[in-house]
Amino acid sequence: MPVRGRVLPPDVKIDIWSDIVCPFCYIGKRHLELALERFEHRDKVEVVWHSFELDPTIEPVADGTLAEKIATKYGMSLEQSEASQRGIAERAAEVGLTFNWQDARFGNTFDAHRLVHLAAGHGLADAAHERLMRAYFTEGVAVGDTAELQRLGEEIGLPADEVRELLAGDAHADAVRADEEQARAYGITGVPFFVLDGKYGVSGAQPVELFEQALAQAWQERSGIQLVTPAAATGAAADSADGSACGPDGCEI
Amino acid sequence: MPVRGRVLPPDVKIDIWSDIVCPFCYIGKRHLELALERFEHRDKVEVVWHSFELDPTIEPVADGTLAEKIATKYGMSLEQSEASQRGIAERAAEVGLTFNWQDARFGNTFDAHRLVHLAAGHGLADAAHERLMRAYFTEGVAVGDTAELQRLGEEIGLPADEVRELLAGDAHADAVRADEEQARAYGITGVPFFVLDGKYGVSGAQPVELFEQALAQAWQERSGIQLVTPAAATGAAADSADGSACGPDGCEI
Repeated sequence: MPVRGRVLPPDVKIDIWSDIVCPFCYIGKRHLELALERFEHRDKVEVVWHSFELDPTIEPVADGTLAEKIATKYGMSLEQSEASQRGIAERAAEVGLTFNWQDARFGNTFDAHRLVHLAAGHGLADAAHERLMRAYFTEGVAVGDTAELQRLGEEIGLPADEVRELLAGDAHADAVRADEEQARAYGITGVPFFVLDGKYGVSGAQPVELFEQALAQAWQERSGIQLVTPAAATGAAADSADGSACGPDGCEI
Repeated sequence: MPVRGRVLPPDVKIDIWSDIVCPFCYIGKRHLELALERFEHRDKVEVVWHSFELDPTIEPVADGTLAEKIATKYGMSLEQSEASQRGIAERAAEVGLTFNWQDARFGNTFDAHRLVHLAAGHGLADAAHERLMRAYFTEGVAVGDTAELQRLGEEIGLPADEVRELLAGDAHADAVRADEEQARAYGITGVPFFVLDGKYGVSGAQPVELFEQALAQAWQERSGIQLVTPAAATGAAADSADGSACGPDGCEI
């Protein structure tokens, strides 16, 4: 009565760990999207965003420019830091993204991640992640600022009162921490990190072609559930894949 | 900076589709538990309960005895129906379960499943599923009855007002339907049905040994995420598993 042989699960699931203020996360998001555009089964792909904070200890809106902040943090000269940001901006431009690093307002992303989790409940996680990234990278918006988060949340279509309540309290804080816990359990220490069907990992903003290959591989092996049967265990004839079970037509021993 | 090679995910996940009033679900639950007792990594196993209604159209508390109901529904004689229930009770007794089928009060389990979803939010899904099954199979309790669900919910430790609110409204109805939708997508038409790590299926109340084997297999193949790398794609040297990424120590191109 239950399934025979192999059955197909509905979708390829892509779990993505990402931070709003992580430039390669933004670039990697585009690479994945370009790969998905070329993937014929893209309507059978489900994307789930997971929180990852590059710097959980930083203040909501950091003082100084991004280049200064990076220079101080990693002990490099301002020139080195600016050259590094220019390099990243060039990489971003290759996929049509504008990274105005001179205007960027670095800061804490915990609340931004909570907002993405709120948006997920409305089917708007991707829209939220995208909007927050554009705000930070292109528009020079401080994504650690409560008023800005309120505005951006409403802009993507979240109910204003829900956003207000979120930002006044600590809703979805557990979800952010659970995501980061799961990242640690997986051994993920850098982002973006993509996991396809819990099986294939793509680490970093890999080329579009690599995402295409990973999608094709996950799709091909999306051969579904393999039944574990007494026959498979003992090598006996495989005519009883099912144990006793109940269905709409009653119970079968 | 991100992971190298293969990493370990935290747990083996077991998704279980089950109905409260399904005798082989109760027996299958015990078989799995016995297998888990013998499984050395049982503290690394996560169980998630999913709703499945054998008869979504039935009234909350059906008239007549279970044997009468089954006889009418499947067009068998009362004697046949009683013999069938006796046979199931014998199977249940083998794993220490008391199935007082003469006292059973068959009925709709939609609300009971909603209660399990509420309990899941409190880490009590397994306790709820177990308590509801004992109530139905052993104690002759009508698990479609609102007052009984209130009592059982409180008994397992759920806040009385949350249970009351649940039973007065339609909270978690979506979760029940989503579970049943997912079962359909998997091709599951009978329960219990167990899916280990989204990969191995166990259909029905299979022998304890089969659950042990499935657990061992899932554990062994819990080899985690396989990184898809440019090297793997092109056959080139595998010294660059990571694309550009950012971590606590900055961004690396």
